[in-house]
Amino acid sequence: MVKPIIWENNCIKIIDQTKLPHKVEIIKLTDVKAAINAIKTMQVRGAPALGVIAAYGTALGAIKLPDSPDFPEKLSAVITEISSSRPTARNLFWALERIKGVVNSNDTPSEMRRKIVLEALKIHQQTEEADRKLSEFGSEIIKDGFNILTHCNAGALATGGYGTALGVIKLAAEKGNKLHVYATETRPLLQGARLTTWELTNEKIPVTLITDSMVGYFMNRGHIDCVIVGADRIARNGDTANKIGTYNIAVIAADNGIPFYIAAPLSTFDLSIASGIEIPIEERAGDEVRNFAFTAVVPTYINVRNPAFDVTPNIYISGIITEKGIITQPFKSKISELFREATNIEC
Amino acid sequence: MVKPIIWENNCIKIIDQTKLPHKVEIIKLTDVKAAINAIKTMQVRGAPALGVIAAYGTALGAIKLPDSPDFPEKLSAVITEISSSRPTARNLFWALERIKGVVNSNDTPSEMRRKIVLEALKIHQQTEEADRKLSEFGSEIIKDGFNILTHCNAGALATGGYGTALGVIKLAAEKGNKLHVYATETRPLLQGARLTTWELTNEKIPVTLITDSMVGYFMNRGHIDCVIVGADRIARNGDTANKIGTYNIAVIAADNGIPFYIAAPLSTFDLSIASGIEIPIEERAGDEVRNFAFTAVVPTYINVRNPAFDVTPNIYISGIITEKGIITQPFKSKISELFREATNIEC
Repeated sequence: MVKPIIWENNCIKIIDQTKLPHKVEIIKLTDVKAAINAIKTMQVRGAPALGVIAAYGTALGAIKLPDSPDFPEKLSAVITEISSSRPTARNLFWALERIKGVVNSNDTPSEMRRKIVLEALKIHQQTEEADRKLSEFGSEIIKDGFNILTHCNAGALATGGYGTALGVIKLAAEKGNKLHVYATETRPLLQGARLTTWELTNEKIPVTLITDSMVGYFMNRGHIDCVIVGADRIARNGDTANKIGTYNIAVIAADNGIPFYIAAPLSTFDLSIASGIEIPIEERAGDEVRNFAFTAVVPTYINVRNPAFDVTPNIYISGIITEKGIITQPFKSKISELFREATNIEC
Repeated sequence: MVKPIIWENNCIKIIDQTKLPHKVEIIKLTDVKAAINAIKTMQVRGAPALGVIAAYGTALGAIKLPDSPDFPEKLSAVITEISSSRPTARNLFWALERIKGVVNSNDTPSEMRRKIVLEALKIHQQTEEADRKLSEFGSEIIKDGFNILTHCNAGALATGGYGTALGVIKLAAEKGNKLHVYATETRPLLQGARLTTWELTNEKIPVTLITDSMVGYFMNRGHIDCVIVGADRIARNGDTANKIGTYNIAVIAADNGIPFYIAAPLSTFDLSIASGIEIPIEERAGDEVRNFAFTAVVPTYINVRNPAFDVTPNIYISGIITEKGIITQPFKSKISELFREATNIEC
């Protein structure tokens, strides 16, 4: 069992995901700067995992800050800094809001530190619990013999727990279903090729790696029974931002009559956003497209674009698998209803 | 002006396309083995260019074969060998049929050699003429200010002439239209990243490189006015095999109401094939997917698939740009009509 994120002796230990699959290297993040760097360079990535790291990162910040009258202001600056590390994943902001919610302005620094560490541990634990619960719901839609397509990596590495899309697949396999997964390589950073095939191979679930360009080929020839992917942010109408290429897959799946599922915890929903067009999309450095692993594919003068996410309109989504059940059309009213029922959980 | 294929002093000179864009290296192919190797390793690629190389390769074979009573059988073996180099591109088989058609069983070896060289030169010349003519027709659909998406490489490198999809774009730009091209990188072998950006940069046509996964993002946000791609084989109902990923693009373009054009000479049509499902699709070595620009992405034990082409059903195609005009729906009757009219040209 992979443990991609561990809080131990007041430091964060993570598997450096940029080194996988060639090397399983554990790195220690001992201060806020290291945590932010790990987020920006994608040593840790995946929306739920970013929530966990943002929380632990704030804990690191609180621990390192000396006792002083301006402790609350300095802590607030730490939170602002972490919140500007990456813009799209909702869970990162959700975790920081949770952290902000537990401290009171009249707490002493040591009370704040204690509360923040406890809240971060709770966020991590709840993230893992949500993975398990949504995997339980999701596994019900998987039938024996299914060929499932997934994009990017929505496994344990992406959540710090059991996984969302891969959690569903793993649990369905544990229940005795014979499954086979098509993993898209997921350019530019190849999370599907590097991380998903690694996780599934560890779990002994048969996986075939294909390029992003091959999705239609295999769908059109009847090789895919359903698609399950994760999410970075879900608007209140169900429009879903996820790794660039997800929208391609959703459109082609719809055109081929193949069910397309999102698997994500409630912490990925952003009820302040009415529809996908409002979701901020990160654009990353062009060299991620120009190069791979320091091998130049094209010269630096070639112009590139590198949006890291796209938005899948809700009309292409068969269902959103959450820890509270599977939401289906009409998404807007069902999401609203689910969150009314779920106000006792901290989302 | 790029001259990717030259016949000179009884040998073929080509730009080694596997070395682009980093190095413009001219290699000489002096025998059939070298020509077949160049085809298989994709030092030369693109359906029309494969036709030209197959013809010149047969010429090399004929020149190298000694005079002997079994010259016709040995020549026939050469043709069979070349025909098994790659399976999908129609032009390769078309060129070999043209070559077979010009020799008579009672020709002397030297007569056969002369006829084959002349026919190969004619095929090359006609390929270039077809490029120019179809580019003329195609350029009429391009409007000033267009953002055009293309996939893989259908330029001079792919035809040995002026280019098909890129020919259309180049001529439209020469006519004074301000254009901008989105080039998909085209995994696994990155012909879009390596070859299309190189050709367009040489022609001073602005180009932006994106990954295959970004097609939907840019279409959905209104950045793409039309798609033009080449073709490897077109069935008599208009279904079109082209580089893997083309079908993805066609479906997403249709869903976004964006015109999707094929640009290909008549030599790419295979009237013996009723629909796309019958087109043989090459599956290439898995290491092309496992590796990225010669850097290993995943270990060799990871299972991969690597179909090199897919088929776009005719319903997604707005028009097929040929040297005899632009064919539109209904394709089956219009293709049939076009070939009836075109029987005086050797296709």
